[in-house]
Amino acid sequence: MDEKATSLKTEIIENFGTPCAVVDLDVMNNNIGNAQKRCDAAGVANRPHIKTHKSPIIAKQQIRVGAKGITCQKLGEAEVMADAGITDIIIATNLLGAARSGQLAALQKRLPLKVCADNPVALAEYAKAAKQADRIMDILIECETGQQRAGVETPAEAMKLAHIIKENPMLHFAGLLFYPSLDGWERTQIFYDELKLELEAIGLSAAIVSTGGTPNFVNIGQLQGATEHRAGTCVFNDRMMIEAGVATLEDCALQVYTSVVSRAGIHRGILDAGSKTLTSDTGGLDGFGHILEHPDAIIHKFSEEHGFLDLSACKIKPEIGDVVRVIPNHVCVAVNMVNQLVAVRSGKIVDTIAVAARGRLV
Amino acid sequence: MDEKATSLKTEIIENFGTPCAVVDLDVMNNNIGNAQKRCDAAGVANRPHIKTHKSPIIAKQQIRVGAKGITCQKLGEAEVMADAGITDIIIATNLLGAARSGQLAALQKRLPLKVCADNPVALAEYAKAAKQADRIMDILIECETGQQRAGVETPAEAMKLAHIIKENPMLHFAGLLFYPSLDGWERTQIFYDELKLELEAIGLSAAIVSTGGTPNFVNIGQLQGATEHRAGTCVFNDRMMIEAGVATLEDCALQVYTSVVSRAGIHRGILDAGSKTLTSDTGGLDGFGHILEHPDAIIHKFSEEHGFLDLSACKIKPEIGDVVRVIPNHVCVAVNMVNQLVAVRSGKIVDTIAVAARGRLV
Repeated sequence: MDEKATSLKTEIIENFGTPCAVVDLDVMNNNIGNAQKRCDAAGVANRPHIKTHKSPIIAKQQIRVGAKGITCQKLGEAEVMADAGITDIIIATNLLGAARSGQLAALQKRLPLKVCADNPVALAEYAKAAKQADRIMDILIECETGQQRAGVETPAEAMKLAHIIKENPMLHFAGLLFYPSLDGWERTQIFYDELKLELEAIGLSAAIVSTGGTPNFVNIGQLQGATEHRAGTCVFNDRMMIEAGVATLEDCALQVYTSVVSRAGIHRGILDAGSKTLTSDTGGLDGFGHILEHPDAIIHKFSEEHGFLDLSACKIKPEIGDVVRVIPNHVCVAVNMVNQLVAVRSGKIVDTIAVAARGRLV
Repeated sequence: MDEKATSLKTEIIENFGTPCAVVDLDVMNNNIGNAQKRCDAAGVANRPHIKTHKSPIIAKQQIRVGAKGITCQKLGEAEVMADAGITDIIIATNLLGAARSGQLAALQKRLPLKVCADNPVALAEYAKAAKQADRIMDILIECETGQQRAGVETPAEAMKLAHIIKENPMLHFAGLLFYPSLDGWERTQIFYDELKLELEAIGLSAAIVSTGGTPNFVNIGQLQGATEHRAGTCVFNDRMMIEAGVATLEDCALQVYTSVVSRAGIHRGILDAGSKTLTSDTGGLDGFGHILEHPDAIIHKFSEEHGFLDLSACKIKPEIGDVVRVIPNHVCVAVNMVNQLVAVRSGKIVDTIAVAARGRLV
């Protein structure tokens, strides 16, 4: 490890202690620029998903670099981003619970939102909220093309929703939301082409055709007709993105600094980062994170504030008191655990960044 | 479902929306009373672990009912509890990162803490913090007896630490911390008996001998010499505690209210509670929670704000817009996801409770 990294560790531990979630702004800004370039090269607008950082400061940086607007996954995220002055927002999920609480109408009164639906119940709630806000609401129809999550499964179902939107004066058809699986882009094209014709037959056209996902950067631009892409994780990257082949270790902007607090057994060790720091989300990978200083150490288990290390494969084992840096498997859920991130640049602490949109109910 | 539950759902969704973490205060208070009774019956003091609720209001309720003090797992938790006026606190972990940041000394200056160690490095940090705070620090030696987490593995190792504590004027030997595995109590007794004699031989005695864990309520009192028990989860209970045989569904005080937001496939459904609400911690169980209204529905997968339902075993399937109540697998990590809990009593919303100690770095 170089001197700069050693001195940064000292600075982190003396100022914040461990565990500590640390963002390297140089790496992050490089990632933000790369995402923009990937969208530019594919000829689609960039609409980053802010669920990864939940920070208006970082969202604004993405917009400064060229993003058209942002994507949120919760109403509470959109509220925080709107408070910070961001106005072009897609909320990429069926908002039922949040709509029925009146909070969707309250936000729609403040600014015109773009929301998503895959069913008539959500549309009815959106119409109600739009009426209450006295502002027409932009609706994207969410289409299922591989993830088996939300989204209508056929163009015919999408058309049923399109008719409802067309007939309701408080709703405006704004486009289509796709989240293709990695191998689902051909299928998505067929779905889109068929739906496009049917929409045109009733006088509608999709101003927005959105694709999503950082791993899908390998496919970006492949959908003829796509107008924008929404990717979240690429702002920080993580072990999952390395596994997906869209990032390297050097592209991982967020590291969790954690102390080795126990070495009670010869092949065992304990970190002060557990499931309440790194989360139990493995992202389908072995172990719960990559330790930069000891790549052969395996974080094999968590309790809430303990990370269990299997050190049997380590030639040089970490000692009690060592501070190590962990690249999380899934950075989006790790960031969501803390109220603030510590920001560093060129090996020095420069700021803290509030994870402002975290911890909210809806 | 009875009328009261239906009307509460309406009240929850109209006031807060979904997802929403809801605590039934009647059930919680009953749980607090039961934990106290279990400790009383076993003749040990009750020192609840507040990691489950992270709320000073609830901690104070536990103290009112008879708890001697509290247990914390992070320095940040102890800071919040101290701010609320709670003074008898064990922090049940090796505090290295937090100690080295100066925050341990700052808190020790405010009140005398009891902290834990299983190694000399932690002891050195404690001595430094105690000196800085100008107040002797109470130290418990953490002993490994089954969980393979932290804790010295032999009485001989414990004695090495006891000698260091004895020789340092800023440290005071306060006792022993055990977290026996369910079948590790006999082993714990042997460990304790041997260590007790060796401690006495150098003039030390353990004023506190602490056992831990809600599942260990089945064993409480079995360790001759134990003076107190620390259990966390029992304040709310969860699916893991039902599985462990120490609670029933009716004892589960915390439910996550969530809406069915999509039914795109015939056997599929999507909840608006995902890994950022219920967490990916399965607690070793199948599925990610128990749905009270549809016990045959399986929450088989999460994305961050989506819970994936497999409804193939459900005779009556939930419909879009339905609000369902989920008993989390592991309530401690679910509570940790939100800034506030909604408190209900007799089927009515009565308050919100801040999860005040969550989201902190150390």
